[in-house]
Amino acid sequence: MATARISEIAKRAGVSEATVSRVLNNKPNVSAATRQAVLASADVLGMEAARSTVRSGRLIGLIIPELSNPIFPALAQVIEQALSGRGYTPVLCTQTAGGSTEDGLVEMLVGQGVAGIVFVSGLHANVDADTGRYEKLAERRIPFILINGFNEKISAPFISPDDHAAMSMAVQHLVQLGHERIGLAVGQQRFVPVKRKVDGFSAALQQLLGRSAEESQKFIHHTLFTVEGGHAAGDALLDRGCTAIVCGSDMMALGAVRAVRERGLSVPEHVSVVGFDGSPLMAFTEPKLTTLRQPVEAMAAAAVDTLLEELKEGSALRGELLFHPELVVRGSTAASWTSRSLS
Amino acid sequence: MATARISEIAKRAGVSEATVSRVLNNKPNVSAATRQAVLASADVLGMEAARSTVRSGRLIGLIIPELSNPIFPALAQVIEQALSGRGYTPVLCTQTAGGSTEDGLVEMLVGQGVAGIVFVSGLHANVDADTGRYEKLAERRIPFILINGFNEKISAPFISPDDHAAMSMAVQHLVQLGHERIGLAVGQQRFVPVKRKVDGFSAALQQLLGRSAEESQKFIHHTLFTVEGGHAAGDALLDRGCTAIVCGSDMMALGAVRAVRERGLSVPEHVSVVGFDGSPLMAFTEPKLTTLRQPVEAMAAAAVDTLLEELKEGSALRGELLFHPELVVRGSTAASWTSRSLS
Repeated sequence: MATARISEIAKRAGVSEATVSRVLNNKPNVSAATRQAVLASADVLGMEAARSTVRSGRLIGLIIPELSNPIFPALAQVIEQALSGRGYTPVLCTQTAGGSTEDGLVEMLVGQGVAGIVFVSGLHANVDADTGRYEKLAERRIPFILINGFNEKISAPFISPDDHAAMSMAVQHLVQLGHERIGLAVGQQRFVPVKRKVDGFSAALQQLLGRSAEESQKFIHHTLFTVEGGHAAGDALLDRGCTAIVCGSDMMALGAVRAVRERGLSVPEHVSVVGFDGSPLMAFTEPKLTTLRQPVEAMAAAAVDTLLEELKEGSALRGELLFHPELVVRGSTAASWTSRSLS
Repeated sequence: MATARISEIAKRAGVSEATVSRVLNNKPNVSAATRQAVLASADVLGMEAARSTVRSGRLIGLIIPELSNPIFPALAQVIEQALSGRGYTPVLCTQTAGGSTEDGLVEMLVGQGVAGIVFVSGLHANVDADTGRYEKLAERRIPFILINGFNEKISAPFISPDDHAAMSMAVQHLVQLGHERIGLAVGQQRFVPVKRKVDGFSAALQQLLGRSAEESQKFIHHTLFTVEGGHAAGDALLDRGCTAIVCGSDMMALGAVRAVRERGLSVPEHVSVVGFDGSPLMAFTEPKLTTLRQPVEAMAAAAVDTLLEELKEGSALRGELLFHPELVVRGSTAASWTSRSLS
């Protein structure tokens, strides 16, 4: 807001420039009458923008990659609920194929005067992406929080599920059921959560099944994080003799179940399948999906708390908070067919 | 934007006020160099707001009630995709319990300078709600489109699935399978889509099963549009001897299936269940859900086309476009148990 402009409003409203500034920045200790006079004066001067400035001080941008995997709307819903409860207005933006990019959405949100931004599974999770965009955002003094992804070059608070621990829990569950040929279906290698899942999975195979690091790589298949991706990865892993498949998302797990059935086999009688994300609808699938549930409520609460700390204090937290997923055992995992037929 | 302000920018940039106005309103026929000079001048004058005005000319608000029922993110996703493809940036806002209300979100979006608003299942669908809010929006010359709900007092384009026809299709499907005691589980009576479903269902029972209007009311149970609501309604309708239950949403249908199972009965062997919405994940439920699919792509395309017409021409369409749902027959409906045991 130009100082010239503020003096005009102050003159017209009969208050000091400091008071106008307080009102326009939505600071406390201004009487309702004064606030009204300032806004009326700003209005008369044609400054629709002034009111939007007041409001935008309470706007928080939330950028998510897509809405098809129900984990993203679920996460958005709890973050929005937490922000609203603290008096902020969340604005949700989704990347679209051939349309909105993360950078474009950031520019738009900054242009709209958001107080802060929450990124979910954004370019910060992509090891190939330039991190300069986040430095620029920090220079513009827009606090931001990064969910699901980590990059040590970015100085910001990070919040993630513990992918490494999750894979260990899944493999342990399957080994206890007698499975020895366990595969992992995950997305593209360039994503940090994928790298972490691969590391955790490989470590668990080495530790619990005595496989070599090289051997365990043969049980990992990279594909897309979708039903169709899971279907393709399921096929590839069944070809390698797997009796159990751990998937990087619930959507992939639904695709892996399809791949098993296409061969005339059953889940969990012949092949066990484990999902990741734990969206509520997975309790209704056929079979009900055993999955690693991201602690969505706890992650959302931490993201909002940390962002509001950043807004108040600046640099509240640097580094990462890891949240332990829960293994929710339902109907898609069972004792290994091969171990049963041997007994 | 105050005219005083525009003259300052024009003076500094060495161009006419008309040119400044063209740039700030993102109109064509301004050279890149001139556009740059105007924006630089606006910048120097401290007018961050100016740039946001340029961008906000391409912003479209999208207000949805919640993100838990997957039909809302699905609809949002295709509308966002269509808007992005036309060069607009969609901004998604969700109502939250105790937080963001529809009116609050509208104020925020208008303050941010959106070019138009798409309402999905908003207060326009609630017959008890005051329609004055939409008149005020029209007075402010913000074009808007209303999806899933109709109110003749509001002068705007409406887009809805044909609820009446959908109920007729569901009842016909169940009657053909031999069902005679068919119930309807729907949400609160104050919503237009509920009224229409009730009317369509009642008309179908009268026409296809020869029930009186009064009799057919006994087969209708109002509850909440959630899994738990569907569970409660399912219980009530099973108590009334229903062998088939049509639900107002897929989420309710999942709850109705639970109610059937709690009694030691099976779907579809003992009781048939039909959903409404047709979210993609319903192809993976146990049993795979027979449902009435809203033609989401067609509705989204029509909403975006109509809104862009409104932006260009004003008053492109008054009244309602109705979209015919599809009956997707899967595993939750089968021949009536009673008709089978009689034959």
